Amino acid sequence: MHIRSAIVAGTALIQTAVAASVQAKNVIYIVPDGYGPASQNMARDLASLMDTGTTGSNPEIHELPVDDLAIGRVRTHSASSMITDSAASGTAFAAGHKSYNGAISVTPEGLPVGSILEAAKLKGLKTGLVSTTSISDATPAVYAAHVANRGSQPLIAEQQLGYSHPLGPMVDLLLGGGRCNFSPSSAEGSCRSDDVDLLHYAEEQGFTVATNREEFNALSRVDLPILGLFNDGSMRYEIDRRVVQDEPSLLEMAQTAVNTLHRATRRRRQGFFLMIEAARIDHAGHDSDPANHAVETWMYNDVIAWVRDWIDKHPDTILLSAADHETGGLTLNGYDPLPLRNTTHSRAYLQELWDNGRPSGSADEQREFLVSEILPLAGLTNASDEEIDAILNASSVGSGIAALLSSRAGVDWSTGGHTSVDVTLHGYAAGRKRRDLKADLAGGWDNTELPRYIEEVLDLDMDAVTRRLRRAAEKDDSWLGASDLAKRDFTEHDHYH
Amino acid sequence: MHIRSAIVAGTALIQTAVAASVQAKNVIYIVPDGYGPASQNMARDLASLMDTGTTGSNPEIHELPVDDLAIGRVRTHSASSMITDSAASGTAFAAGHKSYNGAISVTPEGLPVGSILEAAKLKGLKTGLVSTTSISDATPAVYAAHVANRGSQPLIAEQQLGYSHPLGPMVDLLLGGGRCNFSPSSAEGSCRSDDVDLLHYAEEQGFTVATNREEFNALSRVDLPILGLFNDGSMRYEIDRRVVQDEPSLLEMAQTAVNTLHRATRRRRQGFFLMIEAARIDHAGHDSDPANHAVETWMYNDVIAWVRDWIDKHPDTILLSAADHETGGLTLNGYDPLPLRNTTHSRAYLQELWDNGRPSGSADEQREFLVSEILPLAGLTNASDEEIDAILNASSVGSGIAALLSSRAGVDWSTGGHTSVDVTLHGYAAGRKRRDLKADLAGGWDNTELPRYIEEVLDLDMDAVTRRLRRAAEKDDSWLGASDLAKRDFTEHDHYH
Repeated sequence: MHIRSAIVAGTALIQTAVAASVQAKNVIYIVPDGYGPASQNMARDLASLMDTGTTGSNPEIHELPVDDLAIGRVRTHSASSMITDSAASGTAFAAGHKSYNGAISVTPEGLPVGSILEAAKLKGLKTGLVSTTSISDATPAVYAAHVANRGSQPLIAEQQLGYSHPLGPMVDLLLGGGRCNFSPSSAEGSCRSDDVDLLHYAEEQGFTVATNREEFNALSRVDLPILGLFNDGSMRYEIDRRVVQDEPSLLEMAQTAVNTLHRATRRRRQGFFLMIEAARIDHAGHDSDPANHAVETWMYNDVIAWVRDWIDKHPDTILLSAADHETGGLTLNGYDPLPLRNTTHSRAYLQELWDNGRPSGSADEQREFLVSEILPLAGLTNASDEEIDAILNASSVGSGIAALLSSRAGVDWSTGGHTSVDVTLHGYAAGRKRRDLKADLAGGWDNTELPRYIEEVLDLDMDAVTRRLRRAAEKDDSWLGASDLAKRDFTEHDHYH
Repeated sequence: MHIRSAIVAGTALIQTAVAASVQAKNVIYIVPDGYGPASQNMARDLASLMDTGTTGSNPEIHELPVDDLAIGRVRTHSASSMITDSAASGTAFAAGHKSYNGAISVTPEGLPVGSILEAAKLKGLKTGLVSTTSISDATPAVYAAHVANRGSQPLIAEQQLGYSHPLGPMVDLLLGGGRCNFSPSSAEGSCRSDDVDLLHYAEEQGFTVATNREEFNALSRVDLPILGLFNDGSMRYEIDRRVVQDEPSLLEMAQTAVNTLHRATRRRRQGFFLMIEAARIDHAGHDSDPANHAVETWMYNDVIAWVRDWIDKHPDTILLSAADHETGGLTLNGYDPLPLRNTTHSRAYLQELWDNGRPSGSADEQREFLVSEILPLAGLTNASDEEIDAILNASSVGSGIAALLSSRAGVDWSTGGHTSVDVTLHGYAAGRKRRDLKADLAGGWDNTELPRYIEEVLDLDMDAVTRRLRRAAEKDDSWLGASDLAKRDFTEHDHYH
């Protein structure tokens, strides 16, 4: 006798239709990459105890801005795995199609599928992408590129600027990291193997190009189109950026994006679609780095709070937000967040300090450097001899520090990769629209259903984009990176973010 | 520089008011004890792959009934710990007060607080409690008892029947396990140290008392009040009960409860309040027993589906459902559920088979018994020699089997206790009321806010009950088990369920 349940055989499956009773001029979609159900708990509880002066034995817990916006749950499996990567999940929530891990808005057969951003652009809306990682990495990529392999970031960058996108430039504003995919191979730090200079190309096409903090600051007076790339790779973790503020924060980029897109559309009938990715919640999860994960989650909450307040003043806008997947297998199994309160740097930053700064002398000198120069920045001023030994004997000093912090805070990471738990759907609209949005969206959703809802809210047509992309691909599919299709990876999702 | 966030200092805390735009005659509240965010994934994915014939490499996933009913998230910390037990969380969602782990509807000072069930009873509604564990265990206890220590189940049983409750009998229908707390010490299997015979007392008070399957079946023709206790302790796990059907299932008990309460109230203005606990999701989580956890979660889905359909025919009823806490620290970190498909018994059942049945002979004979008699019931017909060694060398054969099943299915349990992750809030109402319910309840809630919503839906007054209980306690507080207050346990929550 199998454990097969009566439920499977006997209960009719519920088909939930996505019917929007809400119309809007603008949609802001925020992706907290790798943010699982427990991420919000860790961030909320640490903030609450620090704010209220209570402890884990008499906790007084306050809401953070994201809490009040929960509406439902989203299923995240891909066409090739129970556990998705950001590319397959992005293809689902940006373009409405299940595909394989690694796919950038193409089907399992390698055929392009139009995204909600492309549909918006072709309808006359302005569009933007903001991320704290490479702007050509999977989550922003799926909105304006179509390639068989997410690793083809130089190809993705070309499409994102319209250099090789068959329908022309789709994105009016790009802010984030990943400059190396836009600079020619001759430039320092380039990731390209050719001489294509996309920064120069962007300027030729009329983009204002910003590549540092000062140029970012000047963007507040600049009109579309805009390309801002502030790091060759991922931007700094927020926990590190607070100390070295040479890059804009995600909140600052979000504010610039929203204000600029609004300025360009406020006197027009058509509004804007903007995707903002809090990308490095995921990276901190892959690194099992608890304070870093909490601070990235705080920044996500900060962005949500600012956008919520902006919508109160611009009620023709709705906000949706859901992660692509959970990262790290985070559980709070003996939780006391206070040991994280004095951590001021990421595991990655401390590892770099160690690699570059440790004395070449004796083991004792190295140990002394760890204790006096590194551990205080991790908030570990009271590590025991045994704990210090464990850090020095770990696979890396950074992993040893992250493990000790996790242990002290009573948090567990079951994987360096992703897990398949549902993520939380959040949404916001102002005034009476808010009740309609909640009534529309409460429930359980497949991630492919989310862009279909936005399609109705903005009155767009993604399938029309798909038809145009396929006609273009029939003539010439070199822009799709079709030769990479064979490289797609159905199993090694843990290597992906 | 601390990592203290701008969010803590600068963002106003959102106060979410519980305002009910929905009125109803009846409320059914379902508690899936220990059901965390990943529990539904594990159950849904296993059911889907078995139903669709797909695998983890090309999964086709269908919704289960609970999925569509997600509305929001619930915070679960107690007054004494970031990680609650069922008593403190029950005191929160049944009576609206934070208390310490172990508290049964008393404050940290040991003062009684009135529950939503008591408020319903005193307003003239009929009331019921159903559980697959002891009916005097924490989750059902908090609705009609007030004691300092959840371990005092004999005292709780006395209050639940009105034997020692200062306001008289509060519950019209009790169905579940825990008969040992109601039978006198002279009876076989009793948990009491005195001669109080609550089964006899119940009959004297006019209760129909049922203690076995046949008597349960006869309850469908019986009127209130009803006391049905079908096991001295917890009832069978559903995965085992399918094979040995000597007890009613949770679904059968729920059907009897709803139909009987409805029959008693359908011609009256006042309806009913019923709490149904899917109690053993929690126990399977404490046991790190994956197929068992999935099957208990299927049964929870079955009950939700039946209640949802019943409400469609009786639209003056609303359903709310949220777990008390997560159990097990379950993550799906390499998930492929199919290895669980042939498991037909719980870890506890297999352990008992082993303890009672293994040959007294040689190690080889014992190994052969394990391989031929035990492992097939776990669905492990292909265990390698190394895997069999690991089972025999584990702290118990049952734990070794559970660990192997978990490993094969790619699931991880980070604790034998509870964790602090938010649980999902579910709700259902029929017709137009459903959109109002979603609009009311989408968001993030503290567990203490949930009974306040029901209070508005049913127009009840819990604070009035509290005042009456306190007046009674001022005269005589012996019924509160106040001498147990010193025994309350702020830290060892992992020993509790």
